Amino acid sequence: MEITIEKTTSPKTKPDQNALGFGKYFTDHMFIMDYEKNIGWHNAKIIPYQPIPLDPATAVFHYGQAIFEGLKAYRTDDNRILLFRPSKNMERINITNQRMCMPDVDVDFCVNAIKEIVRIDQDWIPSAPGTALYIRPFIIATDPYLGVRASQTYKFMIILSPVGAYYPQGMNPVNIYVEPDYVRAVRGGTGDAKTCGNYAASLKAQERAAEKGYVQVLWLDGVEKKYIEEVGSMNVFFKINGEIITPALGGSILPGITRASVIHLLKAWGLTVTERKISMDELYQAYQSGILEEAFGTGTAAVISPIGELSWNGENIELGKEVGELAKKVYDTITGIQTGKVEDAFGWIVEVE
Amino acid sequence: MEITIEKTTSPKTKPDQNALGFGKYFTDHMFIMDYEKNIGWHNAKIIPYQPIPLDPATAVFHYGQAIFEGLKAYRTDDNRILLFRPSKNMERINITNQRMCMPDVDVDFCVNAIKEIVRIDQDWIPSAPGTALYIRPFIIATDPYLGVRASQTYKFMIILSPVGAYYPQGMNPVNIYVEPDYVRAVRGGTGDAKTCGNYAASLKAQERAAEKGYVQVLWLDGVEKKYIEEVGSMNVFFKINGEIITPALGGSILPGITRASVIHLLKAWGLTVTERKISMDELYQAYQSGILEEAFGTGTAAVISPIGELSWNGENIELGKEVGELAKKVYDTITGIQTGKVEDAFGWIVEVE
Ligand SMILES: Cc1ncc(COP(=O)(O)O)c(C=O)c1O
Ligand SMILES: Cc1ncc(COP(=O)(O)O)c(C=O)c1O
Repeated sequence: MEITIEKTTSPKTKPDQNALGFGKYFTDHMFIMDYEKNIGWHNAKIIPYQPIPLDPATAVFHYGQAIFEGLKAYRTDDNRILLFRPSKNMERINITNQRMCMPDVDVDFCVNAIKEIVRIDQDWIPSAPGTALYIRPFIIATDPYLGVRASQTYKFMIILSPVGAYYPQGMNPVNIYVEPDYVRAVRGGTGDAKTCGNYAASLKAQERAAEKGYVQVLWLDGVEKKYIEEVGSMNVFFKINGEIITPALGGSILPGITRASVIHLLKAWGLTVTERKISMDELYQAYQSGILEEAFGTGTAAVISPIGELSWNGENIELGKEVGELAKKVYDTITGIQTGKVEDAFGWIVEVE
Repeated sequence: MEITIEKTTSPKTKPDQNALGFGKYFTDHMFIMDYEKNIGWHNAKIIPYQPIPLDPATAVFHYGQAIFEGLKAYRTDDNRILLFRPSKNMERINITNQRMCMPDVDVDFCVNAIKEIVRIDQDWIPSAPGTALYIRPFIIATDPYLGVRASQTYKFMIILSPVGAYYPQGMNPVNIYVEPDYVRAVRGGTGDAKTCGNYAASLKAQERAAEKGYVQVLWLDGVEKKYIEEVGSMNVFFKINGEIITPALGGSILPGITRASVIHLLKAWGLTVTERKISMDELYQAYQSGILEEAFGTGTAAVISPIGELSWNGENIELGKEVGELAKKVYDTITGIQTGKVEDAFGWIVEVE
């Protein structure tokens, strides 16, 4: 399929590179293609960034059939543009599509569409340390129909947003609230799909944690409320007595691409990484015995987010205000690979020429 | 707050009254109002039905912060227009809003907005037996921002759709598949909120049930996968040995307005109604001992939907092709009240003058 390109005739003023924040500013163009049941994906085009007019009965407004992905384009010191494992995101979009009864996309075609639009809006990629161009592919159901059924029409879009450094003042451990009541996802639900409803469902707990002075929520499993699942919108790792443990993917956890990359990296370093169930009880005991060495979240936005404190049932797990050695090393390596400063030994980088 | 009214200058042709279906056709007007954090709800207006242009970064597309309600306006034989308990829907919208970190609406104002738009589009209310004007109030998050947080702006809209009879060939028991794997909702989640993500999450199981030849899914609880929750988008009732049992609302079940009305009615008739946990095991045993007399779903769309067969783990519960006596009586009474044929002894009816 060809991608038709219509360039903007009125480029926007670019935002202040020092006040980018996250997901606030959008570039001059967007990618859009349509799906119809008997035609498949068609009408792929890159056009000026613009509002989309939708019938008020459009399915996405009512039944939440919508999914997304998130990845970044990085500018290297020698002005090349790098993507980090983009086909992993497009493979995951299809896993999500499957769960949400939405049509598959062609992984290679979509990676190319990403490259194409990033190339067109490349002047928007910021260059200050830690900044990047955030890429948001997403699909929405567009049938103007109120019956509860899988839509027969969809729009796939890619929008781009220049984003600031996640750690403008340097990496910093955050305090986390272990959520006792609200549940993000349960096995048999949609936790392993990147679908919009999971995020709306998480807001209430996030709001409560913020009121209590915590930055993020640690989610427990929906069945026993015992086992650790994720931290906010990140996967989570613990270093206990030299061993690195991360919750096994059991259907309710999003299979993070950073998570997979961290596991790969740690194993390549010869470290022991175990994917298994881990309960808060076990974590607390490890802490009390003095063998809980580090804890950190992983995700595209922050890459690594060290955990400083965990508040659980009135108990506190204090990991201190220093960034752990392992967290630091993983962070430096992955961000180094992403920005072309560290050799890409695993073939993770795709260059936008 | 005043509602500004702008009438259409090009009314649409009305659809064939005998082929209305559900949620396919929309009337000439829509209600819309805006919310901003520091202003509250404002700018209420009824305008010609039209597409809404939204920035591709709009929160609802990405994080599913969207909720809805559903109720109907009925035309009586003497040409009056009746609503069934509309303030219950607007109270429930606020319970949903609360869970989804969305702003409350004023119940009375919204009921009035419903009356106003129904009055304006009253020529669209069909009159054939079983038909009605379906009313869909909904709220979507409209911040053009990709950070995961509660939106600070929203749109509340009401659209109207003339709908055909649910039972054009007369009431008919349906066959139901008890879903063993997929979970609709879990306590601590959003099952008791009428939020879009719940419906997207339900599509996969519905698809599988349809492939197996069943019309709807019976959902089990997300924790033990033992207890009965709902049937499709309906609450469910069983008559066992003279007693009427419906699953207690435990956080994961939508508190149906039809459910509440049926409970009220049955009690007014002097029948025993129990809201409690009921497992598939118990139901199957009741069936085997010959004391399972009836089973039916309740909801705005069908009012009452009798269950003919339940397929559970390879076992079949057969309730037969006849509509149960109780289901029939409840159906006749509630639809009678809704259409002005049966005296409204409970003050459920609100007339649109
Ligand atoms: C719920 C959730 N968990 C984990 C992650 C981390 O995934 P990734 O490393 O692919 O960004 C994300 C973000 O993408 C997420 O939304
Ligand atoms: C999940 C779910 N359960 C139950 C119901 C029945 O609720 P009500 O009787 O208010 O229509 C609905 C429909 O509104 C629903 O969506």
